[in-house]
Amino acid sequence: MIPSHSFVLTISCADAPGIVAATTACLFERGGNILDAQQFNDLETGRFFMRVVFAVVDHAGGSIQDLRRGFDAVAAHFSMHWSLRSQADRRRVMILASRPDHCLNDLIYRWRTGELPMDICAIVSNYPRETYGLATIGDIPFHMLPVSRETRMQQEAGIWRLVQETGTDLVVLARYMQILSDGLAAKLFGRCINIHHSFLPGFKGARPYHQAHERGVKLIGATSHFVTAALDEGPIIEQDVERISHRDTPEDLVRKGRDIERRVLARAVHTYLDDRVILNGRKTIVFS
Amino acid sequence: MIPSHSFVLTISCADAPGIVAATTACLFERGGNILDAQQFNDLETGRFFMRVVFAVVDHAGGSIQDLRRGFDAVAAHFSMHWSLRSQADRRRVMILASRPDHCLNDLIYRWRTGELPMDICAIVSNYPRETYGLATIGDIPFHMLPVSRETRMQQEAGIWRLVQETGTDLVVLARYMQILSDGLAAKLFGRCINIHHSFLPGFKGARPYHQAHERGVKLIGATSHFVTAALDEGPIIEQDVERISHRDTPEDLVRKGRDIERRVLARAVHTYLDDRVILNGRKTIVFS
Amino acid sequence: MIPSHSFVLTISCADAPGIVAATTACLFERGGNILDAQQFNDLETGRFFMRVVFAVVDHAGGSIQDLRRGFDAVAAHFSMHWSLRSQADRRRVMILASRPDHCLNDLIYRWRTGELPMDICAIVSNYPRETYGLATIGDIPFHMLPVSRETRMQQEAGIWRLVQETGTDLVVLARYMQILSDGLAAKLFGRCINIHHSFLPGFKGARPYHQAHERGVKLIGATSHFVTAALDEGPIIEQDVERISHRDTPEDLVRKGRDIERRVLARAVHTYLDDRVILNGRKTIVFS
Amino acid sequence: MIPSHSFVLTISCADAPGIVAATTACLFERGGNILDAQQFNDLETGRFFMRVVFAVVDHAGGSIQDLRRGFDAVAAHFSMHWSLRSQADRRRVMILASRPDHCLNDLIYRWRTGELPMDICAIVSNYPRETYGLATIGDIPFHMLPVSRETRMQQEAGIWRLVQETGTDLVVLARYMQILSDGLAAKLFGRCINIHHSFLPGFKGARPYHQAHERGVKLIGATSHFVTAALDEGPIIEQDVERISHRDTPEDLVRKGRDIERRVLARAVHTYLDDRVILNGRKTIVFS
Repeated sequence: MIPSHSFVLTISCADAPGIVAATTACLFERGGNILDAQQFNDLETGRFFMRVVFAVVDHAGGSIQDLRRGFDAVAAHFSMHWSLRSQADRRRVMILASRPDHCLNDLIYRWRTGELPMDICAIVSNYPRETYGLATIGDIPFHMLPVSRETRMQQEAGIWRLVQETGTDLVVLARYMQILSDGLAAKLFGRCINIHHSFLPGFKGARPYHQAHERGVKLIGATSHFVTAALDEGPIIEQDVERISHRDTPEDLVRKGRDIERRVLARAVHTYLDDRVILNGRKTIVFS
Repeated sequence: MIPSHSFVLTISCADAPGIVAATTACLFERGGNILDAQQFNDLETGRFFMRVVFAVVDHAGGSIQDLRRGFDAVAAHFSMHWSLRSQADRRRVMILASRPDHCLNDLIYRWRTGELPMDICAIVSNYPRETYGLATIGDIPFHMLPVSRETRMQQEAGIWRLVQETGTDLVVLARYMQILSDGLAAKLFGRCINIHHSFLPGFKGARPYHQAHERGVKLIGATSHFVTAALDEGPIIEQDVERISHRDTPEDLVRKGRDIERRVLARAVHTYLDDRVILNGRKTIVFS
Repeated sequence: MIPSHSFVLTISCADAPGIVAATTACLFERGGNILDAQQFNDLETGRFFMRVVFAVVDHAGGSIQDLRRGFDAVAAHFSMHWSLRSQADRRRVMILASRPDHCLNDLIYRWRTGELPMDICAIVSNYPRETYGLATIGDIPFHMLPVSRETRMQQEAGIWRLVQETGTDLVVLARYMQILSDGLAAKLFGRCINIHHSFLPGFKGARPYHQAHERGVKLIGATSHFVTAALDEGPIIEQDVERISHRDTPEDLVRKGRDIERRVLARAVHTYLDDRVILNGRKTIVFS
Repeated sequence: MIPSHSFVLTISCADAPGIVAATTACLFERGGNILDAQQFNDLETGRFFMRVVFAVVDHAGGSIQDLRRGFDAVAAHFSMHWSLRSQADRRRVMILASRPDHCLNDLIYRWRTGELPMDICAIVSNYPRETYGLATIGDIPFHMLPVSRETRMQQEAGIWRLVQETGTDLVVLARYMQILSDGLAAKLFGRCINIHHSFLPGFKGARPYHQAHERGVKLIGATSHFVTAALDEGPIIEQDVERISHRDTPEDLVRKGRDIERRVLARAVHTYLDDRVILNGRKTIVFS
């Protein structure tokens, strides 16, 4: 339903009177018509957040550069962190995977069906391409970057080089079974999404489904979050759970968990691609 | 977290460029600082919807009358349906009940705990006060208005008189087992909420849990909607479901359903009291 | 966790005292040790249902034939409908699909990962193989059986021939966009599962997501059921829902619905393959 | 639907061949007809669990004493932990509460409506009766047992005395804000249920909703578990969650949490009263 010449503007700044008025006036003057917008004022932190989807009804006016130039003054005045993107422009996404392929498969399927509006610029794995079968990868550039305790830093250097060469906007860890170094995590902060196979903060670290089985919980879940140096502590984007019973073995939980993981990761990536998630310290604002 | 001098403005009008800019500029000029706002543009119907919660940081300025006066010009220019309310002002709510008392009890409990910011100006039932026990009603004005096929119109006249005398803003049908006449439904349109004990549009009419059991569905639900002349067809505000199994008898469904009904009705009433629901033809906009 | 020499016995019969005693005594005498069992007595219909998973701890004893022979007397005495299957034996499954491929893809993926213990003996579509890409189908026998109003009966004859030739145990309609004739539906009764893209009984028939959008419901769902002559009226096996909002266009509902559909269909097929679903008139018993 | 002369038998013992056969044969010989039964064999621990609901169709025969006597031999042979209860006999339940009254209210309401088939033999609080209002308590014996760091042991002695005097079968901690000593926890093991206001194992200890807000989770939950010496570590009976957003303040979480808490606690108590929960080490078997 979104007209092709629509844009999305996201803003985060210290709260102050007149932000919305100044922003929307600026858009209005440039022929912008608001299709969907949400604002949120975090009274705890004093931060203000805004997402606006608008269509430029009069083309005569403006390219996105004009819009950007026009908004610069407003942004500067409120010292905003902001981004303006044409909804026609697709993000460049790199997917990192290991042996489990359900999230990788799912992301690729949703990309092929157009559900995830992105360009997959690279798939990187520490396993060979055959792990996934021709089918899955197709003609997406595939890079095997094996890793061992000794070679970890070189391997990460390789990943970083690829990120730069491919102009990657977003890195998705699709059940990538390696922990990123603090260095790489820092470089990718705010543009690297992981899926953890538990309902965080419960069951951090390894084999969460076995931990869940051991503890006898009645629901299992998955959590998608931004990657930070602190393992499994990054800002949470999306979570979901499903009911289990005493009849479920750890293997059953792993099987049921795959469904939750791929659903939660796909939602988180979709949220990101749609500019609905904005960082708020250790947390996220996710506009519905 | 909401400052005591905060207001909520809701708007619905035909879409046009500049609505948000004009509205927020108007609020800004009167010292309004936006705490939370959402806009939505229904591209199908061309209707625009907006909800703004704002605090008047500078008291010097304005009473709500000043704010209203100030906004009149903007509202007129875009021919808006709009409402401006101080969040300190409580709605006057009339609850209609019959023999089942779980929704009545639940609403009263949530009111006593302050969860539902409203004044209960009257409880009307076609059953005597004893049906509910002293406990429940306490000192809330209670009116027994018995009804039979013959006396239906007089009884409804009595309800309408009470609505006017008490200055009722919202009528809640808390499992009230009588069908309102088209006339009364029309008079109360947009300010009368019902809870139907099924996941509409499935199982309309009588004994929905028995219908659900008969059909063998695996989930049962409840639906809260605005009352219209067309039975069970009003705009839906909130719905929820729960999983059931072949072991559940119709009696089990009724029991489990009570939980869903009271939860769904309470959410719908809360949404209304918080000015989050706006009519959009046969449907509703519910801002999160 | 299930030992390789485990069996599953399912029973349905008129209730009578001693069924469980006689059944379990018979298994015990033949060295069967019960791993998991559930019984249910439908007091409405007077039907009794039982599912027993047991391991034959002493191999010396018995082949499945011996077990069957041994149980015949018990089964005859209570005039049971019953089935005894080695959990090592895989069902032969035929998948029918049309243009939408998300359910087909999902079933194949779950089969490849071993999540669905079945043999896919054929994929039948009224669209050419290219619709799905090499990837999806791989070396699974694919049959294109185009259909038009005129050729419908011949096409169904072709499907039936394939069912017989391949020894198909279960036919899965994976968003197959054709309505089976009463004749074929009757022939496949109890072994043909469909996924309907709505939370039945709401929104039967065509374009349910558009109906749901039109009605303004707050949750959408999907329903997997046995196919019967009466369209969308077959015994329900599994259902699930997800929350939506006024922001969701019909296209969004279709997208979100794909997730629910594939999840619900996969669960229903898994339930069937695990002998957890037993017909009870217009309804099903689904043992957890 | 359960005939009035129905009984429920629960069993837990080391697995061995013939348990179900011996048990059901014994019931059959005494005229027992099985209405609902479930068995589970925990292959990890080698423990076997069984729940049988049966009706004694022939009254002539037996009292529950006869049934017990009759079953003793079977139970002894397999060294079972077992219980046999007439479904007509109600458990005696003591509720412990503190200032928050939503769970207390909810349990009492469900008891008054007959949803929870129990006798409330005492309400114990460290707050005065007025905290709850006449309404709530009615004529249920109420005992105020104030507590301070110094008087804790005496207060617990008072609780224990009451448990014995009243013949309490089950103690329910309905948001009781005191931690039981190891001694009392041990004495009440297996018959004391607590509601913790988080989705354990996440957010143990104090102010879990504030912890959840701090962490920025997208779902909050509640957990009902048996009380053990290890705080918040007891075997889990039931859990549930609800979706929240960045808009929710800690106060909103507390409000939304109350709904989850009372729902989860009520389900756990209902499960217990219906003999559906059996301890399995640190975990529980909960038959559906």
